[in-house]
Amino acid sequence: MNRKPLILVTNDDGITAPGIRTLISVMNQIGEVIVVAPNSPQSGMGHAVTIDDTLFCDEIKVDDGPQKEFHSSGTPADCVKFAVSEILDRKPDLCVSGINHGSNSSINVIYSGTMSAAVEAGVEGIPAIGFSLLDYSWNADFEPLKSFIKKVALNVLENGLPDGVVLNVNFPKSKTFKGIKVCRQARANWVEEFDKRENPRGKKYYWLTGKFVNMDKGEDTDEWALENNYISVVPVQFDLTAHHFIHKLNNWNL
Amino acid sequence: MNRKPLILVTNDDGITAPGIRTLISVMNQIGEVIVVAPNSPQSGMGHAVTIDDTLFCDEIKVDDGPQKEFHSSGTPADCVKFAVSEILDRKPDLCVSGINHGSNSSINVIYSGTMSAAVEAGVEGIPAIGFSLLDYSWNADFEPLKSFIKKVALNVLENGLPDGVVLNVNFPKSKTFKGIKVCRQARANWVEEFDKRENPRGKKYYWLTGKFVNMDKGEDTDEWALENNYISVVPVQFDLTAHHFIHKLNNWNL
Repeated sequence: MNRKPLILVTNDDGITAPGIRTLISVMNQIGEVIVVAPNSPQSGMGHAVTIDDTLFCDEIKVDDGPQKEFHSSGTPADCVKFAVSEILDRKPDLCVSGINHGSNSSINVIYSGTMSAAVEAGVEGIPAIGFSLLDYSWNADFEPLKSFIKKVALNVLENGLPDGVVLNVNFPKSKTFKGIKVCRQARANWVEEFDKRENPRGKKYYWLTGKFVNMDKGEDTDEWALENNYISVVPVQFDLTAHHFIHKLNNWNL
Repeated sequence: MNRKPLILVTNDDGITAPGIRTLISVMNQIGEVIVVAPNSPQSGMGHAVTIDDTLFCDEIKVDDGPQKEFHSSGTPADCVKFAVSEILDRKPDLCVSGINHGSNSSINVIYSGTMSAAVEAGVEGIPAIGFSLLDYSWNADFEPLKSFIKKVALNVLENGLPDGVVLNVNFPKSKTFKGIKVCRQARANWVEEFDKRENPRGKKYYWLTGKFVNMDKGEDTDEWALENNYISVVPVQFDLTAHHFIHKLNNWNL
């Protein structure tokens, strides 16, 4: 039997974000699409799950389809859990998350709600991909990304992914893509700057801001690829064990 | 000069939780302690950071000290960022997070606020350890953990940790510890069950519940160690690249 692949779509910018609407339109060309996404922006949520609060999830119609859509009060990881457990009648063949409005390259992967959804799907044994565009603008032009997203998704459907691996795909802001590059995650980080203010009653408060600092000069990193107008693809794992350090740690005085 | 090590303490259960109070008392034996912790429980927050809301952080006195303490409206990762950027006058020699009331072994590491604080410190180049006890009870007995926590912390202060690695330490619920075992993260996951209810106005809502399923029979895993009454120590990395899959991915038709 050659039935259409079942594709779960989610994101962290909320179900009405232009990024996910683009992703849905591409997935509709490939398979049967079910959308389960947050009803409000969830950026920076990392791999949060809702354990101390209730969850709502209801069907909704955002456009003419043909996809079925549900919006939830939960986080991106909640949406994947809920979809698998309560909505889908079989395990999806693919889960795609995004297109995120903003970068999830390098260390951003650990703060990313978009990638947490892809990782959650991976944990549940579903081949998964997170897509992000290095442009925070709500009205960014996602059109030039479509053919590349389709290509990556078709490759995953055809080749599968090893157990424990999902893909993190980032698109440079300039849309003159030189092609797709398989990369490792650059060793970079944010240097925080807290913007201090005082509220009308004189109480201090802060906004988290920061500068992204990449000290990793490798030309095999996602940051290098993106700076050079390549689309970066990083295979991401959720076995966080630093296997290379186990031998040394065994020689500690523990 | 032989000044006392500067130790940053945080957690995800909130600054008044018995787990962090125990951790503070152990760290006071080792160094100069600064506590920056959430003012309310943040379990299941993953690596969330607060980017769309304001942050509060104020000094507070919880007990007789000698540590200095600050409580914040932010997540565990926010607390580390804030401490490093706004409170500490030098980079701490160690960051410890916990003691979590509940397990952070195996796949729980990716949902864990406790571990996100340790990872955040690691990203900023600070040697870091997350401690957790496999007992969700608020009044769990943390006393038997103290000597082991001190030993692990002193080892990290003496030996350092490689760039990009932090430690995830879990204690079995039974306090008859057989010793400390260096482990890898077990390949396990949660099978969700959503508890369906109806609110007084007839609207459906859900509570996330689930069953932990460990299919990984390896005797080198944290789950094996904990089931056999060992304290598990897993070195955790935040380079999520699945390096073993890069070669194969390069042969895809991308």
